[in-house]
Amino acid sequence: MEDKHMLMIPGPTPVPEKVLIALGKHPIGHRSGDFSKIIAEINQNLKWLHQTKNEVLSLNVSGTGAMEAGMINFLSPGDRVLVGVNGKFGDRWAQICEVFGLKTERITSDWGTPLDTEEFRNLLEADSNKEIKAVVITHSETSAGVLNDLETINKHVKAHGEALIIVDAVTSLGAYNLPIDDLGLDVVASGSQKGYMIPPGLGFICVNDKAWKAYETSKFPRFYMDLGKYKKANAKDSTPFTPPINLMFGLQTALQMMQREGLENIFARHARLTQASRVAAKAMGLSLLAPDNAASTAVTAIKTDDAEAIRSTMRKKYDIALAGGQDHLKGKIFRIGHLGWVSDRDLLTTISCLEATLTELGHDFDAKAGVKAAAAALA
Amino acid sequence: MEDKHMLMIPGPTPVPEKVLIALGKHPIGHRSGDFSKIIAEINQNLKWLHQTKNEVLSLNVSGTGAMEAGMINFLSPGDRVLVGVNGKFGDRWAQICEVFGLKTERITSDWGTPLDTEEFRNLLEADSNKEIKAVVITHSETSAGVLNDLETINKHVKAHGEALIIVDAVTSLGAYNLPIDDLGLDVVASGSQKGYMIPPGLGFICVNDKAWKAYETSKFPRFYMDLGKYKKANAKDSTPFTPPINLMFGLQTALQMMQREGLENIFARHARLTQASRVAAKAMGLSLLAPDNAASTAVTAIKTDDAEAIRSTMRKKYDIALAGGQDHLKGKIFRIGHLGWVSDRDLLTTISCLEATLTELGHDFDAKAGVKAAAAALA
Repeated sequence: MEDKHMLMIPGPTPVPEKVLIALGKHPIGHRSGDFSKIIAEINQNLKWLHQTKNEVLSLNVSGTGAMEAGMINFLSPGDRVLVGVNGKFGDRWAQICEVFGLKTERITSDWGTPLDTEEFRNLLEADSNKEIKAVVITHSETSAGVLNDLETINKHVKAHGEALIIVDAVTSLGAYNLPIDDLGLDVVASGSQKGYMIPPGLGFICVNDKAWKAYETSKFPRFYMDLGKYKKANAKDSTPFTPPINLMFGLQTALQMMQREGLENIFARHARLTQASRVAAKAMGLSLLAPDNAASTAVTAIKTDDAEAIRSTMRKKYDIALAGGQDHLKGKIFRIGHLGWVSDRDLLTTISCLEATLTELGHDFDAKAGVKAAAAALA
Repeated sequence: MEDKHMLMIPGPTPVPEKVLIALGKHPIGHRSGDFSKIIAEINQNLKWLHQTKNEVLSLNVSGTGAMEAGMINFLSPGDRVLVGVNGKFGDRWAQICEVFGLKTERITSDWGTPLDTEEFRNLLEADSNKEIKAVVITHSETSAGVLNDLETINKHVKAHGEALIIVDAVTSLGAYNLPIDDLGLDVVASGSQKGYMIPPGLGFICVNDKAWKAYETSKFPRFYMDLGKYKKANAKDSTPFTPPINLMFGLQTALQMMQREGLENIFARHARLTQASRVAAKAMGLSLLAPDNAASTAVTAIKTDDAEAIRSTMRKKYDIALAGGQDHLKGKIFRIGHLGWVSDRDLLTTISCLEATLTELGHDFDAKAGVKAAAAALA
């Protein structure tokens, strides 16, 4: 039905009406006093969202751009780095490291299986010469719906003492409790079309003092992505280059909404939606790609050979967009996004339509089991 | 007066209501068939606007990001490049070349004075070993309101035969006739908050076959800014990374509006607004930074020692934003932007308020001379 589209994918995520209206406001000059005030408010609220006293820098790039900036500003050609790879995004960060001539070691698990924290420990403990300069971790691996055990890997990095921990928090920031300062995370990157509840176009990078110290000796050439320029401008409530003004109007509004909901409530809501998705899938006889104890709170990946038929019916009959599998999982899984501005009602709606779709496609399970299980989990 | 803000700066430029409404539409999935259709339409219309059969690539970056990508994809460390510098942006492109380790030679003129085309000819003719790999030209130098003689410099580059010509068309594309294929321009970069009539957040790069050949041997590491990835995705009406979906909704609408107006009408309108700004300034006893035969069609820079008082009165009393001078011209000039979605009415409005402002500030000139001169130029 025209304009009845409902996004249940892990990005872009649903955008609240208040934010859409802010996006459609007429731009103002980005060097004006009025815009400086907006930047100041945004920067303050980004620190709140990141649970940090450190700088959070906003770049006019996608999440991939933010991760690239988060690596090339703090490392130098030939540096040894460990990259956790258990999905499409971990693989992408390893590719970037390779393209930039880093000595890249992939610590791999199957898609759907969390990274083995012991592998990191062993390599870090064995590195008595302190050659490892960074450990790159995808916290929530969107392609497989897995939440990697960042806390434990971070402990091993801290025990090493030298290496930076560089975190892809693209689908965990704003969806899972990530106390950046308490954990001492050095570099944390994220993107606007995820937990932030605004459309794509902004990347964020949170940088601590240890990373800034590494910045001083980092040798990659960069200009547009030179985070030192963003830090300097941030101190004056400004940006080094023209920012995406309208997206920042939307961000200002979205951060205000997030503050009204409160961090604890936001995290609890994501945990609840995740649990409801998982019990409902199981109740409908489907199996999950990721184990319960490593479930992403942003997206639930569900295994079934008729994944594409399910997505097609959900889209055509109910105007609900679900994500498919990527690369070798194409056609083998579908993914329910429950990230950002997603409510209990949205989740129940999705499960009830999914139940009808599975029935139509001939799946054999107890009628209404999915909605019943999801409703119980949400209660 | 609240919400009466009027942008007469060279970026961000005024955005039509239709585009604002498109910006505030709910995002859809960027990997959906519906979004592919939008990309296909945009790419077709971008070719129309660029007067080219070549690829026009859209990146989620500012104009500076587009220029950086336009250089680092086609050159290698140590390459000799000539960079025209007669304003803030030419200087920035030279800085980028230096940061990336290019052998950078600045061909300078004072801000407000067009680049000396003979200097380029002499250096290019003397380069019998064909060491010069690129000539970087800012077509319309926004900081000084100067239109450099791209056509003549391009002829000398073509006579050289080896060097690429890399053009910053950020404030000339959509404001001045730039027949890219007829001129054989190799790389042309631009940004969304200028002639495109949409807010900032998208950078564009038009690349010809000669530049793609240079891409094959270019040795700078890059991933997010790797234009080969954008070319490959473009061929499938897709993008390599998540695009700024809502800005692309706006771009789709803006390009449709530009097509209805027609390229010749758009160029004629910009020429008319430029002429009107210049004769009005002269009629009010002010002098212009750039000579008549090298006037930017995007922005007119006007010399006066009370530039900041004029800008302040225009902003406070009439809600009209004018641009100030940058760097050493701060306080010495103000700039009227007449780029993108600016009408004859907007220009007359600005001149009439400027006339009142100058009178209030004690300037001595024939009353109504400015509006009269502007109206005559627009007639």
